[in-house]
Amino acid sequence: MRQEIYLESTPLNEALTKWLNKLSSEGADKPLSGETIKVIDSLGRVTAEAVIAKISSPFYHSSAMDGYAVRFADTFGASERTPKRLKIGEQAVYLDTGDPMPDGFNAVIMIEDVNIIGEYIEIIAPATPWQNVRVIGEDIVATELILPENHQIRPVDIGAMLAGGHTDVKVRRRPRIVIIPTGTEIVEPGTDLHKGDIIEYNSRVLGGLVSEWGGEPVRFRIVPDRPDELKEAILDAISMGDLIVVNAGVSAGSEDFTAGAIRELGEVILHGVSIKPGKPVILGWVKGKPVLGIPGYPVSAYITFQLFAKPLIYRWQGIETEEPEMLKAKLSRQVASPLGQEEFLRVKVGKVGDNLIATPVSRGAGVLMSLVRADGFVRIPVMSEGIGAGTEVVVELMRPKKDITNTIVCIGSHDNALDLLANILKKRHPRLSLSSAHVGSMGGLMALKRGEAHLSGTHLLDEETGEYNVPFIRRLLPDKKILLLNLVYREQGLLVPKGNPKNIKGFEDLTRSDVVFVNRQSGAGTRLLTDRCLRELGINPKDVKGYEREEYTHMGVASAVLTGIADTGLAILASARALSLDFIPVAKERYDLAIPREFLETDMLQNLIKIIREDTEFREIVIGLGGYDICDMGKVMYE
Amino acid sequence: MRQEIYLESTPLNEALTKWLNKLSSEGADKPLSGETIKVIDSLGRVTAEAVIAKISSPFYHSSAMDGYAVRFADTFGASERTPKRLKIGEQAVYLDTGDPMPDGFNAVIMIEDVNIIGEYIEIIAPATPWQNVRVIGEDIVATELILPENHQIRPVDIGAMLAGGHTDVKVRRRPRIVIIPTGTEIVEPGTDLHKGDIIEYNSRVLGGLVSEWGGEPVRFRIVPDRPDELKEAILDAISMGDLIVVNAGVSAGSEDFTAGAIRELGEVILHGVSIKPGKPVILGWVKGKPVLGIPGYPVSAYITFQLFAKPLIYRWQGIETEEPEMLKAKLSRQVASPLGQEEFLRVKVGKVGDNLIATPVSRGAGVLMSLVRADGFVRIPVMSEGIGAGTEVVVELMRPKKDITNTIVCIGSHDNALDLLANILKKRHPRLSLSSAHVGSMGGLMALKRGEAHLSGTHLLDEETGEYNVPFIRRLLPDKKILLLNLVYREQGLLVPKGNPKNIKGFEDLTRSDVVFVNRQSGAGTRLLTDRCLRELGINPKDVKGYEREEYTHMGVASAVLTGIADTGLAILASARALSLDFIPVAKERYDLAIPREFLETDMLQNLIKIIREDTEFREIVIGLGGYDICDMGKVMYE
Repeated sequence: MRQEIYLESTPLNEALTKWLNKLSSEGADKPLSGETIKVIDSLGRVTAEAVIAKISSPFYHSSAMDGYAVRFADTFGASERTPKRLKIGEQAVYLDTGDPMPDGFNAVIMIEDVNIIGEYIEIIAPATPWQNVRVIGEDIVATELILPENHQIRPVDIGAMLAGGHTDVKVRRRPRIVIIPTGTEIVEPGTDLHKGDIIEYNSRVLGGLVSEWGGEPVRFRIVPDRPDELKEAILDAISMGDLIVVNAGVSAGSEDFTAGAIRELGEVILHGVSIKPGKPVILGWVKGKPVLGIPGYPVSAYITFQLFAKPLIYRWQGIETEEPEMLKAKLSRQVASPLGQEEFLRVKVGKVGDNLIATPVSRGAGVLMSLVRADGFVRIPVMSEGIGAGTEVVVELMRPKKDITNTIVCIGSHDNALDLLANILKKRHPRLSLSSAHVGSMGGLMALKRGEAHLSGTHLLDEETGEYNVPFIRRLLPDKKILLLNLVYREQGLLVPKGNPKNIKGFEDLTRSDVVFVNRQSGAGTRLLTDRCLRELGINPKDVKGYEREEYTHMGVASAVLTGIADTGLAILASARALSLDFIPVAKERYDLAIPREFLETDMLQNLIKIIREDTEFREIVIGLGGYDICDMGKVMYE
Repeated sequence: MRQEIYLESTPLNEALTKWLNKLSSEGADKPLSGETIKVIDSLGRVTAEAVIAKISSPFYHSSAMDGYAVRFADTFGASERTPKRLKIGEQAVYLDTGDPMPDGFNAVIMIEDVNIIGEYIEIIAPATPWQNVRVIGEDIVATELILPENHQIRPVDIGAMLAGGHTDVKVRRRPRIVIIPTGTEIVEPGTDLHKGDIIEYNSRVLGGLVSEWGGEPVRFRIVPDRPDELKEAILDAISMGDLIVVNAGVSAGSEDFTAGAIRELGEVILHGVSIKPGKPVILGWVKGKPVLGIPGYPVSAYITFQLFAKPLIYRWQGIETEEPEMLKAKLSRQVASPLGQEEFLRVKVGKVGDNLIATPVSRGAGVLMSLVRADGFVRIPVMSEGIGAGTEVVVELMRPKKDITNTIVCIGSHDNALDLLANILKKRHPRLSLSSAHVGSMGGLMALKRGEAHLSGTHLLDEETGEYNVPFIRRLLPDKKILLLNLVYREQGLLVPKGNPKNIKGFEDLTRSDVVFVNRQSGAGTRLLTDRCLRELGINPKDVKGYEREEYTHMGVASAVLTGIADTGLAILASARALSLDFIPVAKERYDLAIPREFLETDMLQNLIKIIREDTEFREIVIGLGGYDICDMGKVMYE
């Protein structure tokens, strides 16, 4: 099998058109045939033919009230002056609501309008024909259309079909999507892990999407990177499903056999679409079935599957593809993007005051958490080199709009206690979310200035006054009324691997030739602290190896130290504890939340502040993290 | 057991508060305890505790590209002028994307940037530390929060949990809702039906709602109206679920035992809420569990279940109750409503031009089809006696907003061919719907005048000119540009029961004392035809028994004749065929569609017209109905 090296770069729209045209030319774009199932099991399924009422509902005349059935002719002339008596059992028959009308009776008088006198009822008004009677077919008339073809069945539809005399219904067969995870390095979740193993989870993500779209996912066993086994697997899968998805082996590496396998078995319609991420997608056709090869990186897999599998699954059910909700928002920062590729940028969206703000999250195709954290996608067009800060963009939402308006947007310095706060907030108030973007203390205050965040975590030490945060707020946000609330005092220090193998004692060791440092991004409070420590010791940053490698969070620094990328870095004690690193204390600092007064009275912020001030579970967990002093938690430091 | 006679009339908000307060005071308003399930089965479930990463992802450094792993120190000084060679196997190791970095190696050079020369690779630029390397924790860092508590699990979340080392997850137990159908007259769907039987379908509608809301419906067997059996059933059900729903027996009839049973077993918190429909709802509490008694009429059951069960099911899962989408629309006609009751008015909503128009559908509590047809609810406040035509109202939607903008609104005369047209439209274009409201030909033209419909079915004969429709359009819509498209010619005639037992030969028989007629509403073309026939024969409508009983559709008239409510009525042949009635021809008439030109070029209308003009399946089915002449189908009659 020849190795694939060159990929095309077909524009997305052209690729989609080719894909759907191929389906259409093969007659494979029609709704699937029907299958007959029980009506009571049909929720969410799609009708494969119109459902016509077999019987009327009700199918006999019945009383619509509790009262007496009468013949209306017997009631002529009744009035307050000349009440009329009707013999019970002969001229008047008691009925509960829903009881059938006795033959020949054609009106019901409500129980409230009747006097019972011995064997008679007395009435003081005549009845009109068919008053208070539910007549045959009042709800459904036999032969009436209950549901059209291609209708997705809701709970009320189930009731109407049963009422119309149906116990079975012909619905579209669920499209079966066979997902083949491939790769010699791929292992099942829960296996003992060895270096080189990759846990297989893409098929579960894609399978979940198939279920949400109304299809039936079939997960094939893991197939190693061997051309013959892959071909055999594809042939097996073709007998099992309507669409075969091969994940991955679609790129141009020495173990990427998917395109070759598809070509040998059938036809590669297209290999390579100018999207990012997701470029090496393969559209194939084998023995009358579409075969989709999608990349292994989880974000690429997710995006290409949405683009090329979702429309098929809907089409085969005979319903319109469910489109994501759209939203216009302002991009919070500039994003550069390669010309010639349509980029799918993941963003978080928050409503701050009247502004909807979209903030890009990680762009790595391998960062699944970027999808977990994102609220939606922004598409950057093929012919664009990027989007400027403040530009209005269209966001394709992954979450309901209302969740977005119920999100507290926190942009600024990172602290592990913020994660806990987010969790407790959701626990106490399921409708609320706290979303954190980590851009450092300075970046956070600038976000407040631009009206892009509800609050900002900050720990900026003013060297002249020795005061935390307040001088910076006065200087950077002179026009804003800001409340400064303490969250914690925390210990910052140098993290080193367990046992401190390089015997690092403080910043003075950073110039040693055998020591590699990992830094924080500029604008971070921790970066300011680093720079102050170096300055005090008269160390030139150029003499610190690794000074230019920047991480965005404390956990990022801790992770770099744990994994040997660096020997040490400055971070909070909680991050050392989390990864069992040793810790050389450097400073105790104040970590506050800056909140513009305009947002203070919102229900969201009030609930958040209440947790900070009163929630004992939150306090206990923060203390459990280690390195925190909560003596001023929730105290106003400045207003 | 004492029979319940008097109901309270508690305002809805007060009733809801009482209900939730009772739950809270009994400690039953908390999220349910957790259960541990497989991550791969957890789609849609709600986390019962935060999910923290056990391992990092990736958990080893790996190549982010296909290329050669190197030690970056070995690459110092490489340039185009001074290329550097590295020995393959010692200084450079080939890796596919995702392969682990060999120990001591710390950068990857892309395959494209390498020349292979014998046993060496040649490079022309130095590597930077960790370039093209996916470092440990790039996606997920061990100890990081993956999902907070009370989070509803999506496909991507499943991937993130698996990547973070979890195979199991603790999720909230699904709330179990036990639904007890009661009533001696109630039978299972599919049973041989006898007069007096009522098909049990409410439990299936409510069960479907429970599933949609994330709960687990448990359908109890049908319990007859016997107090002891009912009490026993409730006690059984209490051991099975979190909420017990008794349907029905909640009113004040002689067989309404639900309130009594709940009171004897526990407590009736409240009986009777001032809503319409749904008034006799019972809120009860038995042995530590909430017991909800809801009315038997399907619309009442649906509404009260939404109001009193839905918030519990969400609360028990720890997530916010999903609220319906809201929409503002103009009410198309005046609606009177009783003072002192909050009415839930079902409406259809259509977007006609720029106007969103809400049109009330049937208001009967027993008309399940009103829910099938409705797009949403309008709440008419307790202290209102109704809403005027043209008033802006808020609609709580039952369908997605986009379905509403894809609906063709047809208001006017009814014809069975319109039902077929609706079905074929949905079959050919699943995203489109045709919604018909039957108000007669005149009413339809007035709706066009007010801009409330896209088209109108009309068959109005001008007595002076003998011309159909055109004179009426000129007179009623002088300012509108209207296209008149023929749909069919059809036969109108008198319907009589099979065999014509009363030997009716024509309109002259309507004055006979043994003949009861059923009429159409004024403004209907068929009503005009009736009146013309009577006038021509010199018959005074007062001498026609049943002249004042009006039906709104041909099928309504046919149903009245079939069921013996009337002996005869004027309607189209297709309706006689549908219910196997005999037919005495009276006239052949032209049935056209009037379409304002402003809507003609929309994609929706173009698709509809194409079906009318070209679709052979549609034509065949119309002919199959009987009594139709389609020689001019789709022809422009006036423009």
